[in-house]
Amino acid sequence: MASEKKLVEQITSMDEDFAQWYTDIVKKADLIDYSSVKGCMIIRPYGYAIWENIQRLLDTRFKETGHENVYMPMFIPESLLNREKEHVEGFAPEGAWVTMGGSERLTERLCVRPTSETLFCEHYASIIRSYRDLPKLYNQWCSVVRWEKTTRPFLRSREFLWQEGHTMHATAEEAEAETKQMLGVYADFFEHDLGMPVIRGRKTDKEKFAGAEATYTVEALMHDGKALQGGTSHNFGDGFARAFDIQYLDRDNKLKYCHQTSWGVSTRIIGGIIMTHGDDSGLVLPPAVAPIQAVIVPVQQHKEGVLDAARALFDRLKAKGIRVKLDDSDNSPGWKFAEYEMKGVPVRVELGPRDIANGSCVLVRRDNREKKFVSLEGIEEIVLAELDAMTPALFEKAYRHREERTYNADTLDELVKIASEKTGYIRAMWCGELDCELTLKEKADVTSRCIPFGGEPTGDRCVCCGKPAKHLVYWGKAY
Amino acid sequence: MASEKKLVEQITSMDEDFAQWYTDIVKKADLIDYSSVKGCMIIRPYGYAIWENIQRLLDTRFKETGHENVYMPMFIPESLLNREKEHVEGFAPEGAWVTMGGSERLTERLCVRPTSETLFCEHYASIIRSYRDLPKLYNQWCSVVRWEKTTRPFLRSREFLWQEGHTMHATAEEAEAETKQMLGVYADFFEHDLGMPVIRGRKTDKEKFAGAEATYTVEALMHDGKALQGGTSHNFGDGFARAFDIQYLDRDNKLKYCHQTSWGVSTRIIGGIIMTHGDDSGLVLPPAVAPIQAVIVPVQQHKEGVLDAARALFDRLKAKGIRVKLDDSDNSPGWKFAEYEMKGVPVRVELGPRDIANGSCVLVRRDNREKKFVSLEGIEEIVLAELDAMTPALFEKAYRHREERTYNADTLDELVKIASEKTGYIRAMWCGELDCELTLKEKADVTSRCIPFGGEPTGDRCVCCGKPAKHLVYWGKAY
Repeated sequence: MASEKKLVEQITSMDEDFAQWYTDIVKKADLIDYSSVKGCMIIRPYGYAIWENIQRLLDTRFKETGHENVYMPMFIPESLLNREKEHVEGFAPEGAWVTMGGSERLTERLCVRPTSETLFCEHYASIIRSYRDLPKLYNQWCSVVRWEKTTRPFLRSREFLWQEGHTMHATAEEAEAETKQMLGVYADFFEHDLGMPVIRGRKTDKEKFAGAEATYTVEALMHDGKALQGGTSHNFGDGFARAFDIQYLDRDNKLKYCHQTSWGVSTRIIGGIIMTHGDDSGLVLPPAVAPIQAVIVPVQQHKEGVLDAARALFDRLKAKGIRVKLDDSDNSPGWKFAEYEMKGVPVRVELGPRDIANGSCVLVRRDNREKKFVSLEGIEEIVLAELDAMTPALFEKAYRHREERTYNADTLDELVKIASEKTGYIRAMWCGELDCELTLKEKADVTSRCIPFGGEPTGDRCVCCGKPAKHLVYWGKAY
Repeated sequence: MASEKKLVEQITSMDEDFAQWYTDIVKKADLIDYSSVKGCMIIRPYGYAIWENIQRLLDTRFKETGHENVYMPMFIPESLLNREKEHVEGFAPEGAWVTMGGSERLTERLCVRPTSETLFCEHYASIIRSYRDLPKLYNQWCSVVRWEKTTRPFLRSREFLWQEGHTMHATAEEAEAETKQMLGVYADFFEHDLGMPVIRGRKTDKEKFAGAEATYTVEALMHDGKALQGGTSHNFGDGFARAFDIQYLDRDNKLKYCHQTSWGVSTRIIGGIIMTHGDDSGLVLPPAVAPIQAVIVPVQQHKEGVLDAARALFDRLKAKGIRVKLDDSDNSPGWKFAEYEMKGVPVRVELGPRDIANGSCVLVRRDNREKKFVSLEGIEEIVLAELDAMTPALFEKAYRHREERTYNADTLDELVKIASEKTGYIRAMWCGELDCELTLKEKADVTSRCIPFGGEPTGDRCVCCGKPAKHLVYWGKAY
């Protein structure tokens, strides 16, 4: 059977070559395919179904916190992009530019949106008049384009899918509260739905978003010890509002500038899930976003009663709202085990003639791969309990891994030594000066990941220059 | 109060100037806004929420019929677009072309997708090997770009949102069955969810999709008598499969070309809803896609107990799954009545002190605007019943309107006369020759809308040349 070949094609071991292991998984778990469009990816049904689950879970949280979805044009006229100086400097160099419409040369180039602050600002300027119009809490689900030189599926591609929230507020305090609230929404989603522990913190000025006053971030640590920025939330103050003249008439009859935020997560999250939970058998998916939460694999399915029992089990699990699949194809059980492990399906239920005779079945959870013999009576509750238990278990494992991979450094030599020997977070104090940040990049090849909220200081001197320290910083290598 | 001004700004009457009436509604019902990107529109929260409901209802139907969602790149290399000759001739003239990436000129121009057949074909060629891989039933929700010269919100814009299904089949029969099935899905959606009667039929060769063997269509008639193509479903035969070399190994061990379909609907649907059901008070939304299905307007809300009763009513309706809004803002009830009529909210519930004392409320349905005094006891069922009754009533009204606006013509003179005096469908026989189609366009300014499935012939001679007729055709002016 042609498809059985798959079993033989093992994926690269993660310890041997993590990058190749990653590439193997995205291909062999049928998440993506390449096309002739360089640097862009095709998100295949199984990969897209993960994204749909992410969208649904986040969109519900966004709506619960009062946000509304909109759709802005995908093009930004060059003059509009130029309105905010820092912003255009950050994004114009990686713009994809439309210069022809039909057979005619455009009088002004259009940038395919790399992010939509400028479009939202122009719109807000046209619809905001009074304090009664505030806050405006908009979000957009769309694709964006950044002309990257080197690309990797999900992690860095020229086009990617994301959501971008853009909000306008009457006061600086409200904007700051919104920025923090949305960071909290992301952190909650990562930790509770994806089982990915995150460090919440603030970016240094060097690492913050082009045009933002402050960028907050949730940072996750991958299996190989490299950091992944999971989501960011930006407070723009009134910088864009001044550039775009977005004013409102306040209760005191005075015109005031609005305060603004934006926040986003992207299909990068899928890369993060792979590199946090995956293993040498393939993907491991948190149940909340798994397209298939439980797969039923009949054993000796040609024997009388097996498929009937499997179908009855399917109906029972489906009735409980579990996303369940029954694989009654003529591939062997062994092939199916490998296939659904590769695809990271959280729970596998094996059901053969002997099990049926005993009124039981075999249950295997993807993360710990323990075999459990369980009664078919009340099987729905058992599967639901395993699904519920899996995400905290994934979280615990990832949390322990992060703790083991987090090091403290008091001196530059120490930091350089750790960075050369280990990959992980290095906690070290910082004076707040760009020079020291650049020195660490040059000598240890690390960047500042974030200034954590409420992290315990490890000392009172800058790890680099020895001057009084202002912040604890998580340093590391990042995707 | 600034916002009360709205009441005074009446919209243009539809009989006076239908185009202006349409433009007034899309702006005043807060569906869209313009931006500095010429020919593109901003879909505002209220408009986008309608689209989200359309998406949800259609996506459920697509998944029930076995389709899976994917995401393809938004760019098509020029050489890829050129692979199918008729297709590129149809779409290249209205392409938006990316020629610069960052600061570098691209070696090959990229077309922002006007439709994605070529990308799907390339992907299918890489993943289809055997009859076991078929059928492939993919769909994509995305935005597409066509560089139109004249644009109108929802009806014709340079960028619009849509879904495009692309499927691959082993046989011609299966592809034809899929094409018809998806047309049926569209027809069902239009008629049952949107209350819009449609004519199901086939496009003439002149009007079919670039590269298709057959295009099927659902055609709706707008209030002004002009036709709107609601959705199309194309059978490509194996034309693209040959151009892209998409072959599968069949059971008989022979390599065969796949048969292909595509089908799509877009944000045009929203324009169709406006022009089918709207009136001089604004939008009229079918409950299935209305962002707000019922609005509660408290009367004399400052009086004791009114807002409490309104909130209790809100909770009861919400508990039944009704999308309900309570407007307790300090705008006057009269302002609110006008506002929610403009926004097309299906059911309005008015609740004042006297109603509360009587244990009743006033219920007004948007389409017939009859006032009903109903008991608060069992109000949930009454509102649900009104919502259920509204769509068939909308359908009936639109159906009668279409019947009144449908004319038969036996001769060219008759057809020209009808076309000059009336706007609507003209049913007339056709020989099947392009020349006659062009003559009707020239003399009567009508195009063929479709060859209806199972329409009763009105004669046996072509209305134009008098030769034996092959088909009954619906002719008309179209959006």
